[in-house]
Amino acid sequence: MSNKKELRIGLIGCGFMGRTHSNGYRRVPNFFPALQYTPVLQAVCARNEAKARAFADQWGYASVETDWKKLIARDDIDAVDICTPNDTHAEIAIAAAEAGKMVLCEKPLARTLAESQEMVDAVEKAGVANTVWYNYRRIPAVTLAKKIIESGKLGQIYHYRANFLQDWTINANLPQGGEGLWRMDASVAGSGVTGDLLAHCIDTAMWLNGSIKDVSAVTETFVKERMHQLTGKVEKVGIDDACVFHCHFENGSLGLFESTRYARGHKALYTFEINGANASIRWDLHDLNRLEFFDNSDESTLRGWRSIHVTDGEQPYMDKWWVPGLGIGYEHSFIHQVADFLQSLETGGPCKPTFKEALETQKVCEAVLESASSKSWKDTGVNVCIK
Amino acid sequence: MSNKKELRIGLIGCGFMGRTHSNGYRRVPNFFPALQYTPVLQAVCARNEAKARAFADQWGYASVETDWKKLIARDDIDAVDICTPNDTHAEIAIAAAEAGKMVLCEKPLARTLAESQEMVDAVEKAGVANTVWYNYRRIPAVTLAKKIIESGKLGQIYHYRANFLQDWTINANLPQGGEGLWRMDASVAGSGVTGDLLAHCIDTAMWLNGSIKDVSAVTETFVKERMHQLTGKVEKVGIDDACVFHCHFENGSLGLFESTRYARGHKALYTFEINGANASIRWDLHDLNRLEFFDNSDESTLRGWRSIHVTDGEQPYMDKWWVPGLGIGYEHSFIHQVADFLQSLETGGPCKPTFKEALETQKVCEAVLESASSKSWKDTGVNVCIK
Amino acid sequence: MSNKKELRIGLIGCGFMGRTHSNGYRRVPNFFPALQYTPVLQAVCARNEAKARAFADQWGYASVETDWKKLIARDDIDAVDICTPNDTHAEIAIAAAEAGKMVLCEKPLARTLAESQEMVDAVEKAGVANTVWYNYRRIPAVTLAKKIIESGKLGQIYHYRANFLQDWTINANLPQGGEGLWRMDASVAGSGVTGDLLAHCIDTAMWLNGSIKDVSAVTETFVKERMHQLTGKVEKVGIDDACVFHCHFENGSLGLFESTRYARGHKALYTFEINGANASIRWDLHDLNRLEFFDNSDESTLRGWRSIHVTDGEQPYMDKWWVPGLGIGYEHSFIHQVADFLQSLETGGPCKPTFKEALETQKVCEAVLESASSKSWKDTGVNVCIK
Amino acid sequence: MSNKKELRIGLIGCGFMGRTHSNGYRRVPNFFPALQYTPVLQAVCARNEAKARAFADQWGYASVETDWKKLIARDDIDAVDICTPNDTHAEIAIAAAEAGKMVLCEKPLARTLAESQEMVDAVEKAGVANTVWYNYRRIPAVTLAKKIIESGKLGQIYHYRANFLQDWTINANLPQGGEGLWRMDASVAGSGVTGDLLAHCIDTAMWLNGSIKDVSAVTETFVKERMHQLTGKVEKVGIDDACVFHCHFENGSLGLFESTRYARGHKALYTFEINGANASIRWDLHDLNRLEFFDNSDESTLRGWRSIHVTDGEQPYMDKWWVPGLGIGYEHSFIHQVADFLQSLETGGPCKPTFKEALETQKVCEAVLESASSKSWKDTGVNVCIK
Repeated sequence: MSNKKELRIGLIGCGFMGRTHSNGYRRVPNFFPALQYTPVLQAVCARNEAKARAFADQWGYASVETDWKKLIARDDIDAVDICTPNDTHAEIAIAAAEAGKMVLCEKPLARTLAESQEMVDAVEKAGVANTVWYNYRRIPAVTLAKKIIESGKLGQIYHYRANFLQDWTINANLPQGGEGLWRMDASVAGSGVTGDLLAHCIDTAMWLNGSIKDVSAVTETFVKERMHQLTGKVEKVGIDDACVFHCHFENGSLGLFESTRYARGHKALYTFEINGANASIRWDLHDLNRLEFFDNSDESTLRGWRSIHVTDGEQPYMDKWWVPGLGIGYEHSFIHQVADFLQSLETGGPCKPTFKEALETQKVCEAVLESASSKSWKDTGVNVCIK
Repeated sequence: MSNKKELRIGLIGCGFMGRTHSNGYRRVPNFFPALQYTPVLQAVCARNEAKARAFADQWGYASVETDWKKLIARDDIDAVDICTPNDTHAEIAIAAAEAGKMVLCEKPLARTLAESQEMVDAVEKAGVANTVWYNYRRIPAVTLAKKIIESGKLGQIYHYRANFLQDWTINANLPQGGEGLWRMDASVAGSGVTGDLLAHCIDTAMWLNGSIKDVSAVTETFVKERMHQLTGKVEKVGIDDACVFHCHFENGSLGLFESTRYARGHKALYTFEINGANASIRWDLHDLNRLEFFDNSDESTLRGWRSIHVTDGEQPYMDKWWVPGLGIGYEHSFIHQVADFLQSLETGGPCKPTFKEALETQKVCEAVLESASSKSWKDTGVNVCIK
Repeated sequence: MSNKKELRIGLIGCGFMGRTHSNGYRRVPNFFPALQYTPVLQAVCARNEAKARAFADQWGYASVETDWKKLIARDDIDAVDICTPNDTHAEIAIAAAEAGKMVLCEKPLARTLAESQEMVDAVEKAGVANTVWYNYRRIPAVTLAKKIIESGKLGQIYHYRANFLQDWTINANLPQGGEGLWRMDASVAGSGVTGDLLAHCIDTAMWLNGSIKDVSAVTETFVKERMHQLTGKVEKVGIDDACVFHCHFENGSLGLFESTRYARGHKALYTFEINGANASIRWDLHDLNRLEFFDNSDESTLRGWRSIHVTDGEQPYMDKWWVPGLGIGYEHSFIHQVADFLQSLETGGPCKPTFKEALETQKVCEAVLESASSKSWKDTGVNVCIK
Repeated sequence: MSNKKELRIGLIGCGFMGRTHSNGYRRVPNFFPALQYTPVLQAVCARNEAKARAFADQWGYASVETDWKKLIARDDIDAVDICTPNDTHAEIAIAAAEAGKMVLCEKPLARTLAESQEMVDAVEKAGVANTVWYNYRRIPAVTLAKKIIESGKLGQIYHYRANFLQDWTINANLPQGGEGLWRMDASVAGSGVTGDLLAHCIDTAMWLNGSIKDVSAVTETFVKERMHQLTGKVEKVGIDDACVFHCHFENGSLGLFESTRYARGHKALYTFEINGANASIRWDLHDLNRLEFFDNSDESTLRGWRSIHVTDGEQPYMDKWWVPGLGIGYEHSFIHQVADFLQSLETGGPCKPTFKEALETQKVCEAVLESASSKSWKDTGVNVCIK
């Protein structure tokens, strides 16, 4: 163990994502022992010191900060992990990059395309390693989908569709903003489901199926006013509760995306399907260890959607876990991203998606929101193929 | 049996729909013995006499015609059933109405809204009974969905989504037009998936969820040129291979519709889902005896999507069939429509959807195609609530 | 149509099975027009004349009898179809055979092995065509299972399991015996779930997987006494409410069977699964148009259970019905059996299972009941391979 | 953190179960921070020192032993965790108990009932805390099943069925015994699927449904001889490749159990179903975050099996993990068992199942094997209700 290099992490933000990332750092050494880098939980930062302290105790962070600028200034921090609400991503990331730190940023990159562009510029200028936590790419079944597509088995692609359906805000009395609810506040989050959920769908889609050229979208805010937790006043709701768009991919396929927090009965139903001339694939986050695959080259009377339980050791990442049939969970996608980030430090390659690649997703999100407000088609301007 | 009144049917068209309707007429007396009207298969009409004769033999039609005008002129025909390609619906229906015949017309009503409007005017002026074969309404699980929605269990509706996915035209060598392939020829069919498949989705949607106000659509023709069977030449393809649109319903919910014949792995996957504040429903034609239902008023730790096997005698139409657990098939939806048409003759009420109601679906289809070609939102002009 | 030969049917019994068979006779000419024989509904027989008359009206039987002996004695009857309760099968079938009639008998063949043996002897001696309505063999997905097994794709078979789960008698106040409830009366039915439901499972199993050599069973009667509808008295219940057995097949595989009418939530859940060294198959009556198939020769990372929607025209019987994706129902299995019976008259071959083959299922049923009562393994004595 | 009490663990065995348990110890402090005890990974023991050292490095054990007797003799070990092959469980557990250590033993308790009884006697005599790793009880969906059953919602129970199907030994060239294959060697494992897989099914069954009174079983060894890895010779295979049994529960319900390693297409398909008069439950390890529930008290036309995604914070253990819709995996069942063991140290209660309770499962396993070899029913002698 003594030969391991340390990667000293400074985590900013102790919420839900702070937990998933911390778990990723702690588990990697147990399950990816061949990696040369070991994450060290050097410091965690939150404005509320008691909260930061409790988090540090629970997760084993060696120290606590309450001002992120101090954390960034520390010499004993190699990488800054940003798990704060969206409105602070840009400022922190840019400062971290300028301080020469590696930057791992929770998605979406930022509230707006403009903020995101500045972040990309900063990490590129500083030449620091960087990655964005689009974790779903690293669920083994999703990674298998990528491998199948890369194998060419699908042939020409005709359709890509994805949705991300939730139901947790169907309650007019749910406040907006404040503790645990910043995703409801447009000034903090930037947008509603578009940045929160569709960003995931778009990242996966462009990774699997290439660039999105143009979009036509509609958004809806079902509850127009909500009490704001911080002001105590009933205020206009600025976020999109639901967003639907169709689009053209660069490869000529049609895309269809939907997200909402008003689909009663669905907790986190992220699904995607891709239809090619020769084969199709679909996946569902509620049953994340499976991939469905239809291969038209199967004998005609025996063709059917295959339900692949992606748990055998030869499947992506699964040699690190248990035995065939025994599934893993949501959290493992973050563990895999930590492992891949560490691996990228060994090889010197990028850990995808980089800020630059994640910027393309921001372009689509921005075009989607503009299309919805202008009721017209919008070009996305995507110019980096992140496939 | 001597007290039964006869409904003498003249069927025009011996294709796939000629078979489903004929089966409907023949089955009804066995399974709906309490009805006062009995269908009598008086005549079948097709241009090809041998084909008409063979069809008459197989299905028990008493006579054969090769000219539909002669069929309509016959005194011994009470009702004309139109199962011909879309380009002849209007002319036949109008002539039949003018001759005082009841008219049952296969969907879509016609190729265009203008043709459809003339048909509505004709049956209204003639005052003849009329109906359009949007058969999926009468699959018991779909009828149950209607009953649940009418009960108010769903509360405010937020989302409606439907798709109809097929894969049978993924073959650039498939010709367009001619025997068995008129659905590929825009001059005959009027449109591609929009009139063929989305029309079903739209009919069900407006029946379940009310009027669609405006739409934003995109269509795609993946194979641009195909050999035309009748001309022997490679010609430009005029139909839409795929169509996607989103829309607003009158009740404030967002709609999302997709249809394609290029979704490898799906034969006839018609699905719909409706999300309300309190409950949700979904259905799938590939598993047509089931309805899925999520009720948020269930005890919180025991909530889940219920898979209702809609086969008990207390379910819609199912007292006529077998015993719980034993499913019925696609064809039964037509049998049910025949039964309901006969019932409507007893009661004097309409057999839904009437031409007038089906016209509203035509309005949406037309708006969808216009939206796609103009790349802009279109109002549908729907003004009859067919819910 | 004039070249068709008539097969004049005399149906005995107007209950549930009288309906399924009558529907079979009436549908065949519409869907199997190439057959040379046409069923003619010559007479129906029931003790209650009004009931028989109403049934004849509904289904189009030309005449009515109230004494089955008279029906059998008629010169204008070619085939006798027995749809009465089990206690009358033997007497009727033997008399019909002696009168030179073809005999179609609803399953199970009879109450006991002894009765069944006499029936076999009678039809064999008379040399009349005969068949037993083990209808599930002719659901297309089940027939496809047979074809796959015959292709050898499964390799050595290790396991066969089947169950038939219902819940309709979970009610201590449900009477036994009488109208609609003779299946609850051991003196009429012979047994409970063993003859009613397991007989189906056993027939399919030996057809697919060969002879069952020996069995070890347990039965249970959960409600020990019930009011008898005919006597008005509370009487001991003689039937088995549930029966479970394991067994050895001749081919060395292990079998496992279960049936009950006390499995809350299951209406008619007949499922089977067969596991071979190279592939496996499973099927479920609640989703009867599908067959699931696992092929170990698929590429290892892409292996999964395939859900085959058995609705394409190249699937067994499906060229007679609709188009891909559009399912058929329970009743079609009977239509197919009628068609196959008519076909067998053309070719002179048997319509499986014949009485002789169905006798083997009786042997297993008898061994199962004996094993349960003696609490020991029993040899079945099966000696005809009906595979 | 300083107020935490330490529980110093000595782990014996570095195989698959050594990993699952180690992961359990390491994860608990992060996810169950309120517990007063913290596991400390004090020592790991394996005969192969290099292997033990590598394992210690990977998992963070402070020291290494190669002789389990030395490990037990150490003063700085509070609890001994036995993850060795079955043939060593008894000797180690008894020695550990005699040394006053707490004992956590991987299932099954031992190879035979006799060995198991000695182990129970030892821990009872020593008065040390003890538990057996029947981990599936602590999958949240399974724990929810327990809660539903305890609520009385099911009413009188009629049926319990379970199976555990695998396919990993379908290969006549797979050797028996030796590294990674001791489960194939009867002298080490005690039995085949009975002790390995059915033991899990029996533990869950008696926990959910009470004592099993008597059993009737059959076993099969499909491949009779295999090369033994240690001797290099082809030897007779002593284990059961498959085992099926039916049984009576104390509460009058019928049980049905099956396990095999020859069910092609199933990797680790552990499923159970329980049918009560009023409701039923089923569960499947391949989809472990879901519980299916049928409630007959639902409105009759809306009854159906509910698919409960057991991921909300109010579900068992799930307040410790993520947010609704985001599933956990197999490994979490061990984390939960560690947490419950630590909790039991705080409260002084047992951590179920204790050795004494696990002994009842051994009784059933032994009766099953005896029944299979004698081809007769066997009483189990179960006398402790572990429900």
